Parts: sequence; C-alpha cells; structure tokens
Amino acid sequence: MSPLAGPVALVGVGLMGGSLGLALRDRLGAVEVRGVDTDPSALGAALAAGAITHRCDSVEEACAGAGAVFIAAPVGGIAAVARRALVAAPAECLLSDLGSVKNAVIAALSPAERERFIGGHPVCGGERTGVAFARADLFEGATWFLTPTPEARSDLFGRLHGLVAALGARPVAIEADVHDRLMALVSHLPHVIAAALVNQAAATTPGGREALRSAGPSFGDLTRVAGSNPPLWADILLANRDPVRRALAGFRDGLASVDRALADGDRPWLEAWVGAAAEGRARLGPDTPASAGARWRLVVRVPNRPGAISEIATALGHAHINIEDLRFRPGITADEGELALVLDGASAAAHAARLVGDRGYAARTEPAT
Amino acid sequence: MSPLAGPVALVGVGLMGGSLGLALRDRLGAVEVRGVDTDPSALGAALAAGAITHRCDSVEEACAGAGAVFIAAPVGGIAAVARRALVAAPAECLLSDLGSVKNAVIAALSPAERERFIGGHPVCGGERTGVAFARADLFEGATWFLTPTPEARSDLFGRLHGLVAALGARPVAIEADVHDRLMALVSHLPHVIAAALVNQAAATTPGGREALRSAGPSFGDLTRVAGSNPPLWADILLANRDPVRRALAGFRDGLASVDRALADGDRPWLEAWVGAAAEGRARLGPDTPASAGARWRLVVRVPNRPGAISEIATALGHAHINIEDLRFRPGITADEGELALVLDGASAAAHAARLVGDRGYAARTEPAT
Repeated sequence: MSPLAGPVALVGVGLMGGSLGLALRDRLGAVEVRGVDTDPSALGAALAAGAITHRCDSVEEACAGAGAVFIAAPVGGIAAVARRALVAAPAECLLSDLGSVKNAVIAALSPAERERFIGGHPVCGGERTGVAFARADLFEGATWFLTPTPEARSDLFGRLHGLVAALGARPVAIEADVHDRLMALVSHLPHVIAAALVNQAAATTPGGREALRSAGPSFGDLTRVAGSNPPLWADILLANRDPVRRALAGFRDGLASVDRALADGDRPWLEAWVGAAAEGRARLGPDTPASAGARWRLVVRVPNRPGAISEIATALGHAHINIEDLRFRPGITADEGELALVLDGASAAAHAARLVGDRGYAARTEPAT
Repeated sequence: MSPLAGPVALVGVGLMGGSLGLALRDRLGAVEVRGVDTDPSALGAALAAGAITHRCDSVEEACAGAGAVFIAAPVGGIAAVARRALVAAPAECLLSDLGSVKNAVIAALSPAERERFIGGHPVCGGERTGVAFARADLFEGATWFLTPTPEARSDLFGRLHGLVAALGARPVAIEADVHDRLMALVSHLPHVIAAALVNQAAATTPGGREALRSAGPSFGDLTRVAGSNPPLWADILLANRDPVRRALAGFRDGLASVDRALADGDRPWLEAWVGAAAEGRARLGPDTPASAGARWRLVVRVPNRPGAISEIATALGHAHINIEDLRFRPGITADEGELALVLDGASAAAHAARLVGDRGYAARTEPAT
C-alpha cells in the first residue's frame, strides 16, 4: 500500500509545504495534493508551481477524506490547526507537521488526538521563504525527526516513516523534549547569537561601518542567518522558550569562564578550551561514515498496542542507529505483530537487538539478503 | 623609487609571511626576499615554494641592509622581534607587521622605535595555516589596516601605503585602539562564540551527537572557525584582552535582554530585535558602492614633522574615505612638503578637504586627470 493512502492535504504552502507538495508528486506519484493557506496569493502560486493540485478554502475542506495531512504552518499555530484537522480527517488518516519545535504542539493535544497526530521536523530549509523557492529535492538527504508519543498508532507511524524515507530523507525517531533541547542548542541559540552579534556591531562607532565591511569571512559566516524572518523566529523562540533559555544560560556560563580566563591571563586554559572546540567540531562534523557493510534485518515481536513501535524506533534513534526500512505486520497472533527493521551492518543489528531486548521485546537478527 | 628600497626581510614564513613573499616577488618584482623563522622546516618549504629567495639564521642577519622588514609572527612575540629588527636594520628601513592586534605591539615600543615601525593588519587568511597554503593573491582586494602613531615617519608611511596598494590590497589608516576594538567585535568575539557553541553542544547528551550531525547549515556556518589553531588564538585573545572582555560584556548584556524578553513572553520585543539584526546586516554587508566617478586629487601642505601624514590618513580612514594613491613630496619650503592624495570622486575630495582643514592644514582639490 502506498504510504499516501489517498489525497494529501497540505496546510500551509510556503517553502516547506510547497516543497513537500512537489516532492510528494515527484517521488511518490501523489495524484491529489490539496492546499490551504491563510494567504490566497501563496495558494495561487503553489497551484501554478505544481506544488498542489487543488486549492481549498478551509482546513476542513482540505482534510475531508484525506489519507495524510501535513501542517506546514508557523509553530505557534500548529496545535489549533491540528485539532481542527483531526476532527475533519477520516479515522485512518495520518496527521503530521513540519514545525521546528515539537513539545509545544504535542503538549497542546490530548492523548486521543496524539494517536493519529505524530510530530515531524525535516531539518532543512533556506534563507528564502515562500513557495517561489520550493523544490522537490529540498528533503533529499536531510534528517527528518519524528516524535511519536506512546499513544501514536503503530500503523500510522509506520506509514509516516516510510513516506519520509520515500521522499529521500532520513527518518530519525526522537523524544520531543530531546528534540527541542537539541534544536535550542544547534539552531535556536545560534540564531539568537547571530542577531546579537550584528546588533552589537551595528551600534559600534567610530569607524564601525567601514571596518565591519572589511571584517573578513568569519563574521559573515557567523551572521549569515541573522535577522531572517522576524515573526517566524519570534514564534520559534517563544514556542521553545524554556529549552532556549536553558541553552542561553549555559552559553552565558561558558562565556563567563572565558572572561575569567582572560582576566587571569590563563593561557593554558584558553588553549585547552579552543583545542576542545577543535576536537568537538571534528567529532560533530558532517562526516559520512562508510557503510558498515551488509544490510541486516531486525525482527521484533511487538504487542498490538500503540507506542511499542514508537518506543523501539525512538530507542534506536537516540542510539544513532539508522533505520533504513521499517515494516509492521500485524496479526502474527491475536495480540501480537511483527516489526521488521532493515539496519546497516551486523553490529548495528546486534546493538539494536540488545536495546529492544532491554525493553522486554523478543527479537532476532538475520541478513537482509 | 620602488617602495621596497632594497632587500625585504620576512620574519615568519607561515601562511601570511609566505603569501607576502610570493606577492612581493609577483607584484612588485622583489629580487631579494629573505626569510627567517623559528621553524627550520617552514623556512625550507618557503624557499622551495618561492616565497623567499634566501634563508637567514637570525632576525639580525635578515634585517642587515634591508629596505623593508615585515614581521609575520604570533602577536605575542612581535614587539620583541621588532625591537631586535629596529637595531639591526638601516636607518632608512621601513618596518611593519601583519599581526591582528595592534595596541599591544605599539605600546611595547618606545616613541623613537615607532618612527620606523608602523603597524599593519591585512584582513584575510584562511582556515589552514602554513606556507603550504600561501598564495600571491591572498591580499587581493583585502582591507589592510595601517596604524601609524604620531611618531611615524612620513616617508616611511608613504612607502608602506604604496606597497600595500601595489599588492592589490586596500590600505586603510586607523587608530590602533579603534582597530583593536573593532577586531574584538567582528573577529575575536565571533571566534570565542564559535568555540563556546561547539563546546556546549559537544557536552550534550543524550542523542547529541546524532542530532548535531543533522543540525543543518546554520550551526556549521556559525562554528566553522571554532577551534582553529589554539596557541594562535590564545595569543590573540590575550594580546587584545581588554577590548575582547568589553565586547564579551556587551554581548552577554545583549543575551540577557533576549532572556528577559523570553521570560516575559515579549513577542513584539523579539520581533523588533530580530528585525534590527536584518537591517543591521543589510547595512553592514559587503556591498561594493559604485565608483563616485572621476578621480580627484587632494593636495595638502604638511609640515616636515612626523605624524602629519599619519594624522591625515587616519582621519580619512575613520571617515571611510578611500585613498587610492598617496604621495609625499618634501621640500616645498624648508619646513614644508606637499601630500597628494588621489580620491574617488569630487564629493569625497570635498569631504576630505574639510577634514584636513578642520585639523589646520591648507589644502586644495583638483581633478586628477
């Protein structure tokens, strides 16, 4: 069965929603992609660009009879839209979003609503916004975080996982609060810092302007993201307020340590600290580890209850184990089904088997020939 | 007369010194470029790369009979080397450096030593260090700050200005303390921030490593410079300690304001703050203003005393007025000479004439046909 299972509704057709529409049509052969947007001109542009096939006037109209709904709206508005979409969409419909903050959305939904709504966040985008910059390959190779809660229906999570993989992205299941904390550190804090640097430098006199223009490439790199889309970023920072404030506090503590070392003239500390960053950066860098070799299959017996598959996928996501393919076959017994995961290499499969064993699931590994 | 006026001595033949040697030979036809370095293998590599023509065993040997000396050593060691070079070099020799911090060097020299030593800082470089990455066009189009003190000899400053321009760089005279404050903001603080971000992120668990690898381009941009060359950066930060600490304090205040806005949920403040960064970045961007038109000459009568030309060039540097050519003709009268500056456009020339008039100099402007 196609992971689409019918018409797709896109709520919001900007850069992300528009790109998703193009990708769904291009990669998955989606026949009916409905769009709805608070901005009628964006909707017209999305239709003209081929990102959607039908324009709708309301969330309800877009979701009626849909097989999948994706909400690509500013994070502050996602929960309210999701609630309307859940009412309008069929019982078998998968609902997800593309927001860069996850806890705020999930916490606003009831456990029953979280059965069909499973949060997502493709880590990609651009400096430019709007459907004019949308492209079918935006998600190619990108990490696409999925944050299923224990209530998430296994069949819907499996469909979402497959759909994301079919778009060329890498699905990684992760707990919503871990996701938000990490995004605070690697995305939201950096945006705050870039804006703070520019605002401080712009206030400098005399000679500031000329010298800043001559500042060389590092300042340009550091401040490239500064000031992009103020309403969007105010929305993100407020939606992820507590993790961002904790990240800010930790960062300010780090700067305080540097200030103390400077005050003390502590050269060894400064060298070690800069050196640690060199090691850290090398470790964190976007290396592409060589394939571990042959593909292995991990087959797990899972009870017919929500949350089991989410739990397993999230455990593997946190352990950095890539799930190349995920299939759930219900009905092995009346109460049990079978989850088959394709993993990269025997050692990843063995590691994954230990992790699911620790959580009380029976599993076996086998070469995925 | 060539601005070289004889053999050139390079003290330090890494990326910067090596590139200067290549550029001097390539652009100015330097015949004899002597190198000295604490690392004998660097010296051999510089000779093999053609960055120097002769290797020397000591600063004294390199400077004996030289027409110009450039010190391209870590900032912490420049003043001590400069003092030795000043003793060894002839009375007519020009001495300068390529260090990224200026006050620490200048303050360590006596007024008499500052007659021939004029600080410089080409704003360029790369992530990689060492003569292996040296290239003759490293300085092409780069701003090259010059920080002459009031003691600087006019003839030597004129030679240095001409030499920098002949290398394809843009000489900009600036007061040393203004230079150091600006570099603290646009280079040293960003380096500290990049390292702090990486060190904070690297300490994050669980799931940190996987998620950081998926962090998207903004984190990579922000941390590109993190951890480069720990001894060099400890040296720079300590040499520019007070301006860096002031920049850090201002930056931490900025982050504290963001934290307050987050705590208060103050969306309008956050939007305005991000919006200000967008405006600031646009204003600070590396735009290339169209040429103002015809070249004009500003001719200034200057007394035969040190400092007059430095004062004029620095006033124009602070006012963002580009000096395309600078020539000093002594002996108009027994006590006076004539300084001819070529500037871009009539309005720049008029602005410059006002600035030098404000400082008590008689000046006239004319088309530089």
